[in-house]
Amino acid sequence: MEGVKDKTEEKAVEEISLKDLSRKLEEFAKARDWEKYHSPRNLLLAMVGEVGELSEIFQWKGEVEKGLPNWEEADKEHLGEELSDNNPSSEKKEDRRFSPHPCNFQ
Amino acid sequence: MEGVKDKTEEKAVEEISLKDLSRKLEEFAKARDWEKYHSPRNLLLAMVGEVGELSEIFQWKGEVEKGLPNWEEADKEHLGEELSDNNPSSEKKEDRRFSPHPCNFQ
Amino acid sequence: MEGVKDKTEEKAVEEISLKDLSRKLEEFAKARDWEKYHSPRNLLLAMVGEVGELSEIFQWKGEVEKGLPNWEEADKEHLGEELSDNNPSSEKKEDRRFSPHPCNFQ
Amino acid sequence: MEGVKDKTEEKAVEEISLKDLSRKLEEFAKARDWEKYHSPRNLLLAMVGEVGELSEIFQWKGEVEKGLPNWEEADKEHLGEELSDNNPSSEKKEDRRFSPHPCNFQ
Repeated sequence: MEGVKDKTEEKAVEEISLKDLSRKLEEFAKARDWEKYHSPRNLLLAMVGEVGELSEIFQWKGEVEKGLPNWEEADKEHLGEELSDNNPSSEKKEDRRFSPHPCNFQ
Repeated sequence: MEGVKDKTEEKAVEEISLKDLSRKLEEFAKARDWEKYHSPRNLLLAMVGEVGELSEIFQWKGEVEKGLPNWEEADKEHLGEELSDNNPSSEKKEDRRFSPHPCNFQ
Repeated sequence: MEGVKDKTEEKAVEEISLKDLSRKLEEFAKARDWEKYHSPRNLLLAMVGEVGELSEIFQWKGEVEKGLPNWEEADKEHLGEELSDNNPSSEKKEDRRFSPHPCNFQ
Repeated sequence: MEGVKDKTEEKAVEEISLKDLSRKLEEFAKARDWEKYHSPRNLLLAMVGEVGELSEIFQWKGEVEKGLPNWEEADKEHLGEELSDNNPSSEKKEDRRFSPHPCNFQ
């Protein structure tokens, strides 16, 4: 995930609890007045969209091994960005409308 | 689907049989030497990617009625383009690597 | 797709045009009074569900070759059934609430 | 999520950090010798399958409000089960082959 956030930030994210992550996501949405968009089916379709973007990274690769040994650095970075789209501390997300999170469905 | 292809082309597509569609997709891939990419799981992930793009169009809309009565023309056109991504006669597809089609899975 | 429908039926399906397929799907839904369920986002989520079922067939297989040379007959049959879930002439579908089809989105 | 796990267990899960969750998922897989199944594309397709199952719960509902005010208890419970499919402490998962988790992709 290099290139998306620095080491300190990455560590902070890893230490966060599911509960605090959920709370941070709520605050993130509230601060931007995005809660009105977060109906269950909106969030579900957003999750489908995110999984679709992950799939587009992998779609023409054929089978790949754990650790992505033969991938170019740019592809790994792209993957890291997609995987961190749920990460509330990512600076990259400022221009995104929300963070999908399973806890928001209920 | 206006804006993606003209009326004559649209009619031709509608008249095509599933068998001929499948054959055209095969020819389309063969002519570009793309068959090597068309392993079952590559195609499946490509299909997930396409469904993800459809979902991204609908994700923040809340519920929408049949016929998309309140959608702007640009959104309808975007949707038409995504839906025609499986359409082998679309000129737009020249730069795409393939056309996913259920028949190719087996 | 052996085991799902007989040869004659399979041929009839292959010869059908996209336009007639679309019309048959409409009639199929109308006859069951299912049109009320066919809002764009309902259909989209149903499509996501179908793609999810396809994915579950492939998820633990590792990479598979075209033609599925090492698959057991039961797995091939299961795949055929999932792929034919869009096929309006399949007897298997009598108990399903609808047939998702891209043409219904607009 | 009542019915899937008791209150104490639920609290324990909420307090877990992303790092520990990731580690528990690894241990869970290792103890069952499932690591061999966890190639990136296997996990990705498993994630698509899970999102597909969520979609099947929502597909015929039309739009639903936050908190699912008009849902029956059985539907809410089913949803809770699907959402907890990533939860490594769920007893329900003993018979599942693995837990998909974004962290496993890299």
